[in-house]
Amino acid sequence: MDGCVFCRMVAGEIPVTKIYEDEAVLAFLDIAPISDGHALVIPKQHCTQIHDCAPDVLADVVWRLGEIAEAVMTAMESDGYNVLSNNGSAAGQVVDHLHFHVIPRKTGDGVLTQWPSYRYKAGQIEKFAGKIRENLK
Amino acid sequence: MDGCVFCRMVAGEIPVTKIYEDEAVLAFLDIAPISDGHALVIPKQHCTQIHDCAPDVLADVVWRLGEIAEAVMTAMESDGYNVLSNNGSAAGQVVDHLHFHVIPRKTGDGVLTQWPSYRYKAGQIEKFAGKIRENLK
Repeated sequence: MDGCVFCRMVAGEIPVTKIYEDEAVLAFLDIAPISDGHALVIPKQHCTQIHDCAPDVLADVVWRLGEIAEAVMTAMESDGYNVLSNNGSAAGQVVDHLHFHVIPRKTGDGVLTQWPSYRYKAGQIEKFAGKIRENLK
Repeated sequence: MDGCVFCRMVAGEIPVTKIYEDEAVLAFLDIAPISDGHALVIPKQHCTQIHDCAPDVLADVVWRLGEIAEAVMTAMESDGYNVLSNNGSAAGQVVDHLHFHVIPRKTGDGVLTQWPSYRYKAGQIEKFAGKIRENLK
Protein backbone atom coordinates (compact mmCIF):
# COMPACT_ATOMS: atom_id res chain seq x y z
CA MET A 1 0.00 0.00 0.00
CA ASP A 2 1.30 3.45 -0.90
CA GLY A 3 3.04 5.10 1.99
CA CYS A 4 3.07 2.01 4.24
CA VAL A 5 6.52 1.62 5.80
CA PHE A 6 6.28 -2.17 5.96
CA CYS A 7 5.13 -2.42 2.34
CA ARG A 8 8.17 -0.32 1.42
CA MET A 9 10.37 -2.75 3.36
CA VAL A 10 8.77 -5.66 1.49
CA ALA A 11 9.47 -3.83 -1.79
CA GLY A 12 13.12 -3.31 -0.80
CA GLU A 13 12.77 0.47 -0.69
CA ILE A 14 13.66 0.66 3.02
CA PRO A 15 16.49 -1.53 4.36
CA VAL A 16 15.75 -4.09 7.06
CA THR A 17 17.80 -6.63 8.96
CA LYS A 18 16.11 -9.71 7.52
CA ILE A 19 16.03 -13.01 9.34
CA TYR A 20 13.55 -14.80 7.03
CA GLU A 21 11.80 -14.24 3.73
CA ASP A 22 9.64 -16.28 1.40
CA GLU A 23 6.90 -15.50 -1.12
CA ALA A 24 4.33 -14.63 1.56
CA VAL A 25 6.19 -13.60 4.70
CA LEU A 26 9.01 -11.29 5.77
CA ALA A 27 10.67 -11.37 9.20
CA PHE A 28 13.23 -8.88 10.46
CA LEU A 29 14.67 -7.54 13.69
CA ASP A 30 12.97 -4.58 15.35
CA ILE A 31 15.38 -1.64 15.46
CA ALA A 32 13.89 -0.56 18.81
CA PRO A 33 13.74 -3.94 20.59
CA ILE A 34 12.47 -4.66 24.07
CA SER A 35 14.78 -7.70 24.26
CA ASP A 36 17.78 -8.79 22.19
CA GLY A 37 16.57 -10.63 19.08
CA HIS A 38 13.08 -9.06 19.18
CA ALA A 39 11.70 -9.82 15.72
CA LEU A 40 8.73 -8.76 13.62
CA VAL A 41 6.92 -11.19 11.34
CA ILE A 42 4.64 -9.71 8.68
CA PRO A 43 2.60 -10.86 5.69
CA LYS A 44 3.89 -9.36 2.45
CA GLN A 45 0.32 -8.69 1.39
CA HIS A 46 -0.94 -5.55 3.10
CA CYS A 47 -3.61 -5.82 5.73
CA THR A 48 -4.00 -3.69 8.81
CA GLN A 49 -5.34 -5.78 11.66
CA ILE A 50 -6.02 -9.46 12.31
CA HIS A 51 -9.77 -9.18 11.79
CA ASP A 52 -9.38 -7.58 8.35
CA CYS A 53 -6.82 -10.10 7.06
CA ALA A 54 -7.81 -12.96 4.77
CA PRO A 55 -7.60 -16.35 6.52
CA ASP A 56 -4.99 -17.65 4.07
CA VAL A 57 -2.77 -14.60 4.68
CA LEU A 58 -2.98 -15.19 8.44
CA ALA A 59 -2.30 -18.90 8.00
CA ASP A 60 0.83 -18.14 5.95
CA VAL A 61 2.15 -15.99 8.78
CA VAL A 62 1.45 -18.37 11.66
CA TRP A 63 2.90 -21.34 9.81
CA ARG A 64 6.21 -19.49 9.86
CA LEU A 65 5.81 -17.98 13.34
CA GLY A 66 6.65 -21.24 15.08
CA GLU A 67 9.83 -21.89 13.10
CA ILE A 68 10.96 -18.30 13.44
CA ALA A 69 10.23 -18.22 17.18
CA GLU A 70 12.18 -21.44 17.70
CA ALA A 71 15.18 -20.09 15.77
CA VAL A 72 15.07 -16.80 17.69
CA MET A 73 14.90 -18.69 20.99
CA THR A 74 17.80 -20.99 20.10
CA ALA A 75 19.99 -18.19 18.74
CA MET A 76 19.33 -15.88 21.70
CA GLU A 77 19.50 -18.72 24.25
CA SER A 78 16.18 -17.60 25.64
CA ASP A 79 13.83 -19.54 27.92
CA GLY A 80 10.58 -18.56 26.20
CA TYR A 81 8.96 -15.94 23.99
CA ASN A 82 5.91 -13.74 23.67
CA VAL A 83 4.03 -13.42 20.42
CA LEU A 84 2.14 -10.14 20.42
CA SER A 85 0.03 -8.36 17.85
CA ASN A 86 -1.28 -4.89 18.68
CA ASN A 87 -4.38 -4.05 16.68
CA GLY A 88 -5.39 -0.40 16.59
CA SER A 89 -3.61 2.62 18.07
CA ALA A 90 -5.54 2.14 21.34
CA ALA A 91 -3.71 -1.21 21.61
CA GLY A 92 -0.29 0.27 20.81
CA GLN A 93 -0.19 -0.37 17.05
CA VAL A 94 2.20 2.12 15.47
CA VAL A 95 2.56 0.80 11.89
CA ASP A 96 -0.77 0.07 10.21
CA HIS A 97 0.38 -3.17 8.56
CA LEU A 98 -0.33 -6.36 10.50
CA HIS A 99 2.70 -7.56 12.42
CA PHE A 100 3.50 -10.10 15.09
CA HIS A 101 6.23 -9.29 17.60
CA VAL A 102 8.34 -12.29 18.61
CA ILE A 103 9.95 -11.29 21.89
CA PRO A 104 12.55 -13.69 23.32
CA ARG A 105 12.43 -13.88 27.10
CA LYS A 106 14.74 -15.00 29.85
CA THR A 107 13.56 -16.03 33.29
CA GLY A 108 13.22 -12.97 35.51
CA ASP A 109 14.11 -10.45 32.80
CA GLY A 110 11.25 -8.15 33.81
CA VAL A 111 10.56 -7.24 30.18
CA LEU A 112 6.77 -7.69 30.03
CA THR A 113 5.42 -8.09 33.53
CA GLN A 114 2.50 -5.65 33.60
CA TRP A 115 -0.61 -7.80 34.11
CA PRO A 116 -3.33 -5.86 35.97
CA SER A 117 -5.78 -8.73 36.40
CA TYR A 118 -8.92 -8.48 38.50
CA ARG A 119 -12.13 -10.42 39.10
CA TYR A 120 -15.54 -9.71 37.59
CA LYS A 121 -18.43 -8.69 39.81
CA ALA A 122 -21.31 -11.19 40.07
CA GLY A 123 -23.10 -11.61 36.73
CA GLN A 124 -20.65 -9.52 34.69
CA ILE A 125 -18.83 -12.37 32.95
CA GLU A 126 -22.09 -13.92 31.71
CA LYS A 127 -23.37 -10.53 30.54
CA PHE A 128 -20.20 -9.81 28.56
CA ALA A 129 -20.07 -13.34 27.12
CA GLY A 130 -23.68 -13.02 25.99
CA LYS A 131 -22.95 -9.76 24.19
CA ILE A 132 -19.91 -11.27 22.47
CA ARG A 133 -21.84 -14.37 21.39
CA GLU A 134 -24.53 -12.12 19.86
CA ASN A 135 -21.81 -10.56 17.70
CA LEU A 136 -20.43 -13.88 16.45
CA LYS A 137 -22.21 -15.28 13.47
CA MET B 1 -3.72 -34.40 27.75
CA ASP B 2 -4.18 -35.89 31.22
CA GLY B 3 -4.16 -33.23 33.90
CA CYS B 4 -4.25 -30.27 31.49
CA VAL B 5 -6.80 -27.72 32.72
CA PHE B 6 -7.64 -26.52 29.20
CA CYS B 7 -8.04 -30.09 27.89
CA ARG B 8 -10.46 -30.66 30.77
CA MET B 9 -12.37 -27.52 29.74
CA VAL B 10 -12.51 -28.83 26.16
CA ALA B 11 -13.82 -32.16 27.51
CA GLY B 12 -16.51 -30.36 29.51
CA GLU B 13 -15.08 -31.48 32.85
CA ILE B 14 -14.42 -27.91 34.02
CA PRO B 15 -17.04 -25.23 33.33
CA VAL B 16 -16.11 -22.22 31.20
CA THR B 17 -17.93 -19.14 30.00
CA LYS B 18 -17.89 -20.02 26.31
CA ILE B 19 -18.08 -17.41 23.61
CA TYR B 20 -17.29 -19.68 20.65
CA GLU B 21 -16.83 -23.37 19.90
CA ASP B 22 -16.40 -25.51 16.81
CA GLU B 23 -14.70 -28.82 16.05
CA ALA B 24 -11.18 -27.40 16.36
CA VAL B 25 -11.35 -24.31 18.55
CA LEU B 26 -12.76 -23.20 21.91
CA ALA B 27 -12.96 -19.58 23.07
CA PHE B 28 -14.01 -18.42 26.51
CA LEU B 29 -13.67 -15.47 28.85
CA ASP B 30 -10.68 -15.33 31.19
CA ILE B 31 -11.90 -15.41 34.81
CA ALA B 32 -9.02 -13.12 35.80
CA PRO B 33 -9.21 -10.54 33.00
CA ILE B 34 -6.99 -7.52 32.47
CA SER B 35 -9.84 -5.77 30.61
CA ASP B 36 -13.56 -6.46 30.40
CA GLY B 37 -14.21 -9.08 27.72
CA HIS B 38 -10.65 -10.48 27.84
CA ALA B 39 -10.96 -13.80 26.01
CA LEU B 40 -8.82 -16.89 25.50
CA VAL B 41 -8.79 -18.76 22.19
CA ILE B 42 -7.35 -22.29 22.21
CA PRO B 43 -7.02 -25.26 19.87
CA LYS B 44 -8.91 -28.29 21.15
CA GLN B 45 -5.99 -30.48 20.23
CA HIS B 46 -3.33 -30.22 22.91
CA CYS B 47 -0.06 -28.52 22.13
CA THR B 48 2.05 -26.46 24.46
CA GLN B 49 3.69 -23.63 22.56
CA ILE B 50 3.46 -22.14 19.08
CA HIS B 51 6.66 -23.80 17.84
CA ASP B 52 5.48 -27.28 18.84
CA CYS B 53 2.00 -26.97 17.28
CA ALA B 54 1.19 -28.47 13.90
CA PRO B 55 0.67 -25.82 11.20
CA ASP B 56 -2.92 -26.91 10.56
CA VAL B 57 -3.75 -26.61 14.26
CA LEU B 58 -2.33 -23.09 14.32
CA ALA B 59 -4.17 -22.18 11.13
CA ASP B 60 -7.47 -23.37 12.63
CA VAL B 61 -6.94 -21.05 15.58
CA VAL B 62 -5.93 -17.92 13.69
CA TRP B 63 -8.76 -18.31 11.19
CA ARG B 64 -11.13 -17.85 14.14
CA LEU B 65 -9.04 -15.25 15.96
CA GLY B 66 -10.08 -12.45 13.62
CA GLU B 67 -13.80 -13.13 13.89
CA ILE B 68 -13.62 -13.56 17.63
CA ALA B 69 -11.56 -10.41 18.09
CA GLU B 70 -14.00 -8.41 15.98
CA ALA B 71 -16.98 -9.69 18.00
CA VAL B 72 -15.21 -8.95 21.29
CA MET B 73 -14.38 -5.45 20.09
CA THR B 74 -17.92 -4.74 18.94
CA ALA B 75 -19.53 -6.17 22.07
CA MET B 76 -17.19 -4.35 24.45
CA GLU B 77 -17.21 -1.13 22.39
CA SER B 78 -13.42 -1.16 22.39
CA ASP B 79 -11.07 0.79 20.15
CA GLY B 80 -8.57 -1.99 19.52
CA TYR B 81 -7.22 -5.26 20.89
CA ASN B 82 -4.02 -7.08 21.69
CA VAL B 83 -3.49 -10.68 20.69
CA LEU B 84 -0.88 -12.21 22.97
CA SER B 85 0.53 -15.69 23.34
CA ASN B 86 3.01 -16.34 26.16
CA ASN B 87 5.24 -19.30 25.40
CA GLY B 88 7.16 -20.77 28.32
CA SER B 89 7.01 -19.81 32.00
CA ALA B 90 9.80 -17.25 31.42
CA ALA B 91 7.32 -15.48 29.12
CA GLY B 92 4.44 -15.64 31.58
CA GLN B 93 2.75 -18.84 30.38
CA VAL B 94 0.76 -20.32 33.26
CA VAL B 95 -1.28 -23.08 31.57
CA ASP B 96 0.82 -25.37 29.35
CA HIS B 97 -1.75 -25.58 26.54
CA LEU B 98 -1.32 -23.07 23.72
CA HIS B 99 -3.63 -20.08 24.11
CA PHE B 100 -4.06 -16.67 22.58
CA HIS B 101 -5.28 -13.85 24.77
CA VAL B 102 -7.63 -11.41 23.02
CA ILE B 103 -7.52 -8.27 25.13
CA PRO B 104 -9.97 -5.50 24.17
CA ARG B 105 -8.50 -2.04 24.64
CA LYS B 106 -9.84 1.47 24.96
CA THR B 107 -7.80 4.56 24.19
CA GLY B 108 -5.77 5.57 27.23
CA ASP B 109 -6.84 2.62 29.39
CA GLY B 110 -3.27 2.03 30.57
CA VAL B 111 -3.77 -1.75 30.51
CA LEU B 112 -0.62 -2.85 28.65
CA THR B 113 1.76 0.06 28.41
CA GLN B 114 5.08 -1.46 29.54
CA TRP B 115 7.39 -1.25 26.52
CA PRO B 116 11.05 -0.91 27.58
CA SER B 117 12.52 -0.39 24.12
CA TYR B 118 16.15 0.52 23.53
CA ARG B 119 18.64 0.72 20.68
CA TYR B 120 21.28 -1.84 19.77
CA LYS B 121 24.95 -0.96 20.00
CA ALA B 122 26.85 -0.83 16.71
CA GLY B 123 27.05 -4.24 15.05
CA GLN B 124 24.75 -6.02 17.51
CA ILE B 125 21.67 -6.22 15.30
CA GLU B 126 23.62 -7.86 12.45
CA LYS B 127 25.28 -10.29 14.85
CA PHE B 128 21.96 -11.39 16.34
CA ALA B 129 20.28 -11.61 12.92
CA GLY B 130 23.14 -13.78 11.64
CA LYS B 131 22.75 -16.17 14.57
CA ILE B 132 18.99 -16.41 14.04
CA ARG B 133 19.39 -17.03 10.29
CA GLU B 134 21.82 -19.87 11.06
CA ASN B 135 19.07 -21.51 13.11
CA LEU B 136 16.41 -21.24 10.40
CA LYS B 137 16.44 -24.06 7.91
